[in-house]
Amino acid sequence: MPVTRMQAAPTTTPIRERAAGTDYEGHFRNALERLHGERRYRVFADIERISGRFPTANWRRPDGRTTEITVWCSNDYLGMGQHPDVVAAMTETARRCGVGAGGTRNIAGNNSPLVDLERELADLHGKEAGLVFTSGYVSNQAGISTIAKLIPDCLILSDAFNHNSMIEGVRHSGCEKRVFRHNDLAHLEELLAAAGDRPKLIVFESVYSMDGDVAPIEKICDLAQRYGAMTYLDEVHAVGLYGERGAGMAERDGVMHRVDVIEGTLAKGFGCVGGYITGSALLCDAVRSHAAGFIFTTALPPAIAAAARASVRYLKRSSVERAAHQRQAARTKAALEAAGLPVLPTETHIVPVMVGDAELCKAAADHLLERHAIYIQPINYPTVPRGTERLRITPSPFHDEARIAKLTAALVETWETLDLPRAGTLFVEAAE
Amino acid sequence: MPVTRMQAAPTTTPIRERAAGTDYEGHFRNALERLHGERRYRVFADIERISGRFPTANWRRPDGRTTEITVWCSNDYLGMGQHPDVVAAMTETARRCGVGAGGTRNIAGNNSPLVDLERELADLHGKEAGLVFTSGYVSNQAGISTIAKLIPDCLILSDAFNHNSMIEGVRHSGCEKRVFRHNDLAHLEELLAAAGDRPKLIVFESVYSMDGDVAPIEKICDLAQRYGAMTYLDEVHAVGLYGERGAGMAERDGVMHRVDVIEGTLAKGFGCVGGYITGSALLCDAVRSHAAGFIFTTALPPAIAAAARASVRYLKRSSVERAAHQRQAARTKAALEAAGLPVLPTETHIVPVMVGDAELCKAAADHLLERHAIYIQPINYPTVPRGTERLRITPSPFHDEARIAKLTAALVETWETLDLPRAGTLFVEAAE
Ligand SMILES: Cc1ncc(COP(=O)(O)O)c(C=O)c1O
Ligand SMILES: Cc1ncc(COP(=O)(O)O)c(C=O)c1O
Repeated sequence: MPVTRMQAAPTTTPIRERAAGTDYEGHFRNALERLHGERRYRVFADIERISGRFPTANWRRPDGRTTEITVWCSNDYLGMGQHPDVVAAMTETARRCGVGAGGTRNIAGNNSPLVDLERELADLHGKEAGLVFTSGYVSNQAGISTIAKLIPDCLILSDAFNHNSMIEGVRHSGCEKRVFRHNDLAHLEELLAAAGDRPKLIVFESVYSMDGDVAPIEKICDLAQRYGAMTYLDEVHAVGLYGERGAGMAERDGVMHRVDVIEGTLAKGFGCVGGYITGSALLCDAVRSHAAGFIFTTALPPAIAAAARASVRYLKRSSVERAAHQRQAARTKAALEAAGLPVLPTETHIVPVMVGDAELCKAAADHLLERHAIYIQPINYPTVPRGTERLRITPSPFHDEARIAKLTAALVETWETLDLPRAGTLFVEAAE
Repeated sequence: MPVTRMQAAPTTTPIRERAAGTDYEGHFRNALERLHGERRYRVFADIERISGRFPTANWRRPDGRTTEITVWCSNDYLGMGQHPDVVAAMTETARRCGVGAGGTRNIAGNNSPLVDLERELADLHGKEAGLVFTSGYVSNQAGISTIAKLIPDCLILSDAFNHNSMIEGVRHSGCEKRVFRHNDLAHLEELLAAAGDRPKLIVFESVYSMDGDVAPIEKICDLAQRYGAMTYLDEVHAVGLYGERGAGMAERDGVMHRVDVIEGTLAKGFGCVGGYITGSALLCDAVRSHAAGFIFTTALPPAIAAAARASVRYLKRSSVERAAHQRQAARTKAALEAAGLPVLPTETHIVPVMVGDAELCKAAADHLLERHAIYIQPINYPTVPRGTERLRITPSPFHDEARIAKLTAALVETWETLDLPRAGTLFVEAAE
């Protein structure tokens, strides 16, 4: 809602006073009107999470009033953002080193907690080296583009459902690319075979975050081996959550050593912010030395690096959170399915409940928030294909039985009130 | 130094085992060897700043030993990263809200401290709205590209010395661009006139960080007005530092209201991390709704947003730091000039001491660190043009007279030991 972004007494903006020329404001207005027309205009819920009481948060309404709500759509999947070790690492490091890093990695910003974090991440994924970026987005964009650019005549093979940050990385590389149908090994093999001897880079994700399905990592590594391709795997929705030490799906499947580059985020399972790649020492050094998105930006603050490292270290040792996470996700799915709600079956912690219409999806989310104090952001196009609009529910270890029961009842009431499609009546092909 | 990035027992990386195909590692090795050959390989100093004692920091040597040093090249220009209000805002918010935001702006990550920060920034620059990104880099890359894309047939006019993040934004927009000679009003006017009636966006910086020179903002706004162009100004090296309330050079010059978009960072003068744009409500809403680099990434943590807001608020009220900053920068320049060192004259807080050779520049920096416990990162190509290699010194309010005297003596000793060019013997044209 733009209104909440405005000041009390807006200055007359100079764009409007321009003597000659274009109606610039008109272009921005038109762009926004297009979004409204397509029911794609997004309103951000303004929330403040309450540490120690996740998934409870305060929702600040547009009029300023505050309501206590339950967040059911956070990507802080394990609630590590409120873990005492993680919060303590942040506060202690902020007191010891201050807030910002004070410079780029090259110029005064290369702080010790960040160097230690990179070692920790290399160890996590069994790689020689790690390289931290300001976000998972930037790690993909800068990582993929730089790696591919450094390999002469590189052909990129990219899964059709790859995240926007990976698509940007591919685009930015300027390399030729082929998109293979989502998780389709036969199609991937066809493209690999057709490419012949030239260098090839396969970029894909382990857990696809909107449908919650998982890539056949081992089989993709087999193909890479057979056809002499490099592999780049985004484990953003799996790190912390899967594998003996929380290294992700490749660890769970016992194939971590077969993947050349493993990329992850510090912002989801690890509950902080930032992103990274891990791989060979030469590869990470080459990216460190060539990636503009790494070089020309201020380093991650020491307090963030220390918090992320505390989270990674903790989850290497402890599997309690991972077990509880899977258990509560399974219980949530079971409860919603038993109530006849159209849950998309997944083998992961992600629980999509299908709506299939942008406006209804938003209406359901608004109703849940207003009526039930339950916050689940509607997921519409372009994040998912049109016709597959959904509520994407992410249970954490802290979403206990009482909360699951409340959620189920609230969804049933919402489905009845808005007359939404029940299980069995909605046939969506999310992969279109 | 890649050695410090390796683990004790590196895993054999799969890239090397690839049955068929390319020697991928060979390409990365070659790329690094090229850098070594051109003396462009960068080694990051591993430092830990000591809050409350800035600019003192611990330097962790490659062998693990630690030495206390003075940092003379930080971009935490005012030392706000250690300001009690700023550190307290971070630690209190981390305790209250946890560490990470837990999601993208749209999906569960839109935290109240971040919303408040955007209002604060809009107010700072006298604009209707503000929009925060994960970094200044991303704010330029995503901001410029999105704004230009939303204006049909937009021509971008870009200063030749613009920062990499702006160049990436221009490139990413896919729009036609013309580069005008650095700060050259006649050339800019020529290009504006030649463009005729089509929409035009002028992108430039206020303070250019390597030479410390300043754009003729008012005159550029005059041209923009005359030829019906929009203006986008990067104030990254000026926010917090110039103007009555620290809004930057456009505020100092009294022309803030004439600039359409003002971009800034939270990572330099404000001592934290993150970046932003401010402008009209429609413009910010359109960027919010269309910029992939804003949409598909985890929001800035509430603790960071709160710290940044505390910094912005503090510097709106207090000019003591700005005055001390200018004073210590002037004293540093005077001391170095009096000692016959080749200081590039600047009208800002940036003190470049010219070396003019990549290898000597690195040798001088190494010598200063090893021998004098003074840390000044060498600035070589591609950050500055070849032949203009330099030590870029950034005095803060905390670099007192005793430190300036020590710096001067250390530089003089280094210049003698390495037989470096003195003032008057080096004629560099930094703008080439
Ligand atoms: C698959 C995938 N990769 C990368 C990212 C970006 O990670 P970050 O939020 O750390 O920028 C996301 C989502 O945010 C994602 O879903
Ligand atoms: C002119 C300019 N713009 C933008 C940036 C990027 O800002 P940030 O460090 O917040 O990414 C920098 C340097 O880092 C810069 O020098």
